[in-house]
Amino acid sequence: MIWPNHDLLDLLNIEVPVIQAPMAGANGPEMAIAVSQTGGLGSLPCAMLSPAQADAGIRAIRDATERPYNVNFFCHEMPLPDADRDLRWRDSLAAYHAELGATRSDATSAPARLPFDDAMCEVIEAHQPPVISFHFGLPPEPLFARVKMAGCTVLSSATSVDEARWLEACGCDAIIAQGAEAGGHRGTFLSDPIQSAATQTGTIALLPQIADAVSVPVIAAGGIADGRGVAAALILGAAGVQVGTAYLHTPEATIGKLHREALGRATDNGTALTNLFSGRPARGIMNRLMEEQGPISASAPAFPTAGARLAPIRQAAEAAGRPDFTSLWAGQAAPLHHAMDAAGLTRRLADEARVCLMGLSG
Amino acid sequence: MIWPNHDLLDLLNIEVPVIQAPMAGANGPEMAIAVSQTGGLGSLPCAMLSPAQADAGIRAIRDATERPYNVNFFCHEMPLPDADRDLRWRDSLAAYHAELGATRSDATSAPARLPFDDAMCEVIEAHQPPVISFHFGLPPEPLFARVKMAGCTVLSSATSVDEARWLEACGCDAIIAQGAEAGGHRGTFLSDPIQSAATQTGTIALLPQIADAVSVPVIAAGGIADGRGVAAALILGAAGVQVGTAYLHTPEATIGKLHREALGRATDNGTALTNLFSGRPARGIMNRLMEEQGPISASAPAFPTAGARLAPIRQAAEAAGRPDFTSLWAGQAAPLHHAMDAAGLTRRLADEARVCLMGLSG
Repeated sequence: MIWPNHDLLDLLNIEVPVIQAPMAGANGPEMAIAVSQTGGLGSLPCAMLSPAQADAGIRAIRDATERPYNVNFFCHEMPLPDADRDLRWRDSLAAYHAELGATRSDATSAPARLPFDDAMCEVIEAHQPPVISFHFGLPPEPLFARVKMAGCTVLSSATSVDEARWLEACGCDAIIAQGAEAGGHRGTFLSDPIQSAATQTGTIALLPQIADAVSVPVIAAGGIADGRGVAAALILGAAGVQVGTAYLHTPEATIGKLHREALGRATDNGTALTNLFSGRPARGIMNRLMEEQGPISASAPAFPTAGARLAPIRQAAEAAGRPDFTSLWAGQAAPLHHAMDAAGLTRRLADEARVCLMGLSG
Repeated sequence: MIWPNHDLLDLLNIEVPVIQAPMAGANGPEMAIAVSQTGGLGSLPCAMLSPAQADAGIRAIRDATERPYNVNFFCHEMPLPDADRDLRWRDSLAAYHAELGATRSDATSAPARLPFDDAMCEVIEAHQPPVISFHFGLPPEPLFARVKMAGCTVLSSATSVDEARWLEACGCDAIIAQGAEAGGHRGTFLSDPIQSAATQTGTIALLPQIADAVSVPVIAAGGIADGRGVAAALILGAAGVQVGTAYLHTPEATIGKLHREALGRATDNGTALTNLFSGRPARGIMNRLMEEQGPISASAPAFPTAGARLAPIRQAAEAAGRPDFTSLWAGQAAPLHHAMDAAGLTRRLADEARVCLMGLSG
């Protein structure tokens, strides 16, 4: 089978134009290894890891496979403290504390998501991974230059044509066109993330416009969970796809029982973008907190600090078996899943896409 | 050329799997005739017409072509008066009245959009048009039965899998899967339209899920403006497409100068769903009213009455050449357009799609 576009396969040295989306907190080396060994590109999300943990994760991948792999980082700026907003948010959550008997911590715990920094860059320089992907733009120029000097192919997400043009001008080697259907965090970085939640563009409209605007390979993300989606993305101008939610269903996903059960019940119109869990819009399955507070709220603290005050409430609810305050990241194609492991899913995505593409010739 | 799926072509007796979306206030018989004569299905929107105007429009089409055509109606329920909400809305608009020196009318003008009723059904029974499409569900059973008795093929829009299943169970002959990218009004009818604005599903995710759920032909709408979109929709499980915004750019569109100019400047991420202009969420190009009041506001009166109080402000602003208070309906693929007439666009959509589909075989 000759794929209609080999640009991404050649750039990344992979056999199947499928990237497993890095899902911070939801996958580790095991999933990445399975996908890379099947000919796709496995990804290790490092946004919630320490440099030592990232180092260990990369070592685990290198020990298991000689195939290319991707290491992913966030590159947001940390916000200044905002005592007024924090107070409003505490007030919004007070009734939940009382209801659940949650311990109220006055100390804001350390943010769970940190931007790519010097210490992480040293890990990258030590391992020189074949591919690095960023979310929320790119790191500051000195760090970006060091990543390129280490020989890494660099990807980043665009949620608009403007962002895609910006990433290409900065030297990105390929661009992930992240349609509004995608689960997890919007990669938006050139406009206010909260305000732009209302203007996020769907994959079928975003992808051809980005493909027309840049000359580097474009990777489609958002709403793609089976071979039909892969084939459609290739027709719309993508050289490959990045798939997240479909891999959340696999046994390699490191998600909790409540998240996994919610994914099993997911519907086409049961998710929304919400900033309540982290401070930035991310797509997840609607639950009680989203219904009662938002899903978008001006009271939620800035990214990545919103989750800290929520933590004791979430923990108390989870202990009672309730996903009411848990981020249940999922994309709009979550129902399109089958029981299989990450390697099987990677093969199935490729095989189904080939059938779709070849079926059109007659 | 053999299209991959002939179900819709056979059902509607058309040659090209392209339906020109009915756009109330934005197209009349001229566009419908051009599309039908080119082998697609032209549509006459009647939601803002009187029965006499609808009758005249259908006569104009029948006089001009023997090809099949579609006549479209809304089938919402009219809301009860809500004096408190109306007062809140007047307060929200007061500053604009003062700024623009607009005449403040205390009489709410008659709603511009009326549901399909007995008088319209008589027009349908007189002409027996080959195809009728509905938006916001279906009309009450006695009217629906009369439409079917008149021999019309019936289409309606689904914005979720549940709505698609409901429409099939009610006897719809084909279902329009309306992705969130689409311009104009969301067809949502099984859930609260305002609350469900946050959970609208993009075409690439919605379409395969609806295609899996029903056995009647599925028509893709939302974000499709060129042959790539048509081909992608066919791969995702559609038997045809409905295209709106791309036809707004044609000379046959009966839109004002300000709307046409705004379409010419449209960007991929410059639209949002708003209920400010009619009371129901509809996608349009962001403007001052949407930025300052919403784009979704709980103060806006229920559909279809929201526009009445706005009318004098809109008129004063338009007279000053400002589109700040005008509904600028557009989908997210608005930038994907070329200067051509409705017949040329129909041909181009089909020809480009064929090239996309055939290019994949080798």
